[in-house]
Amino acid sequence: MPDDDVAKALQDALAVRFGERLSIDPSLDGLTELTSIAAHRTHRRYLPQPVAPELVRLLCACALSAPSKSDLQQSDVLVVRDGAIRRAIAAKIPDNPWVGTAPAFLVFLANGRRQPFISTLRGKPFPNDHLDLLFNAVSNCSIVLATFIRAAEAVGLGCCPISAIRDRAALVSDLLRLPDRVIPVAGLCLGWPSERGHITPRLGLEATVHTDHYGDRDLAADIDAYDRRRNEGRPPWKQRNPERWGEAAFYGWSEDKARQYAEPLRADFGAFVRAKGFRLD
Amino acid sequence: MPDDDVAKALQDALAVRFGERLSIDPSLDGLTELTSIAAHRTHRRYLPQPVAPELVRLLCACALSAPSKSDLQQSDVLVVRDGAIRRAIAAKIPDNPWVGTAPAFLVFLANGRRQPFISTLRGKPFPNDHLDLLFNAVSNCSIVLATFIRAAEAVGLGCCPISAIRDRAALVSDLLRLPDRVIPVAGLCLGWPSERGHITPRLGLEATVHTDHYGDRDLAADIDAYDRRRNEGRPPWKQRNPERWGEAAFYGWSEDKARQYAEPLRADFGAFVRAKGFRLD
Repeated sequence: MPDDDVAKALQDALAVRFGERLSIDPSLDGLTELTSIAAHRTHRRYLPQPVAPELVRLLCACALSAPSKSDLQQSDVLVVRDGAIRRAIAAKIPDNPWVGTAPAFLVFLANGRRQPFISTLRGKPFPNDHLDLLFNAVSNCSIVLATFIRAAEAVGLGCCPISAIRDRAALVSDLLRLPDRVIPVAGLCLGWPSERGHITPRLGLEATVHTDHYGDRDLAADIDAYDRRRNEGRPPWKQRNPERWGEAAFYGWSEDKARQYAEPLRADFGAFVRAKGFRLD
Repeated sequence: MPDDDVAKALQDALAVRFGERLSIDPSLDGLTELTSIAAHRTHRRYLPQPVAPELVRLLCACALSAPSKSDLQQSDVLVVRDGAIRRAIAAKIPDNPWVGTAPAFLVFLANGRRQPFISTLRGKPFPNDHLDLLFNAVSNCSIVLATFIRAAEAVGLGCCPISAIRDRAALVSDLLRLPDRVIPVAGLCLGWPSERGHITPRLGLEATVHTDHYGDRDLAADIDAYDRRRNEGRPPWKQRNPERWGEAAFYGWSEDKARQYAEPLRADFGAFVRAKGFRLD
């Protein structure tokens, strides 16, 4: 595509995302890659063809090339090929049936094990067994996950991250034989998409990009505006839990998220993380 | 470049990174983007020219287009333009002088504030004030950070993430006026690189990519092999803290990381996170 057309495609994708036409210099390098990033779509439906194991390994290598806090390398990728393990995980997350059916399924691991292992190996103390170890490992793992998704989308694959595996963290941990201080952050369904997917609108940049000081004085108004923008031209939401909350006359993102988190979720996750040997002091 | 040449460039970058020549199908789409991902370099030295504010905003929009756990959008980007704020942060992180000198400096924020705010706005309870709130926000923020770096590198900018701002989390939080349940995950120096940079080798994939079950039986041997591979052709490390540990005859990555974390680091970070209103139960 000529540069002007690529710049316009990027501007169009971001207009759908944020409700704003950003100023873009068409002479910038990398506009095609920015458009791919801006047009990110989650894919839950896939063609039946498999994803070659060598391609999965290549994407893992790209993902593990991502920046790593203090060069500590605190993340691993686990590829679930065994059908029995996959079915056991899928059976416990029935709301995400694509866990059982996607051509490939991976689990991204936060690894707080290697760092103290290295301290022992080199005969050094490790006086840092506190929240920082978990924090860094989760952050590192999330960076690897994001980079994997980026690489997968670049080759035309579609992804769906599965944070719901943390609803069943102990079971997943046992099935994958995760040792102490290695925990699952998210699963990932992967395959060649069977549908184009759609760009999910996000909160306006006035709510999420700040200069010098954090500011969200107009947060309620920003959320209302986002709810309305997001509902334009989309089919109505399936209202959550109408038995408890009734049918809302206007139902948008904020009502949906408020209803979703009005139920206790992952209340045992802290206990799981501690049982895996992390200290959260 | 013809596809075969791009595939070879990708293979070369990953060989430097992991010490292994991966099998790559030259007919894959997206090989140029994969090569850019695989060849990621950290940049700490920049040309004097500024990064246009519209470009920073464009990159923020791309970054905030990244996947968001359960569509919760728990991350913000703060652009530090005020010289006094920047100098105050830089003065407290003297080991990272580029914080004060990079053409642009940003801070990536984990936001656990909006979600309970939405519950209140919509008249719903929020029975999820536990570790999950912090975990999701940190993970989301790290995904946004990784996506920002990817987008910045695509246009030719260089980045250096600054996790050391967490060594001074309370000070940074005060300077940026972060409200309760909004915390800094990392800073980011940004500019047009003045040097090509280099690809940092990583642990071999045998240590970090697993199939079906986590396995690291040979971890000590894998780390030794990595230490040796990483030292090939690079200038010797500056040994940390020789007063305490002496001069090691062989000094590699694992010795360096063990020495780095033999000192207490960020021991007050858990207290900071709790003081900002997160509960870690």
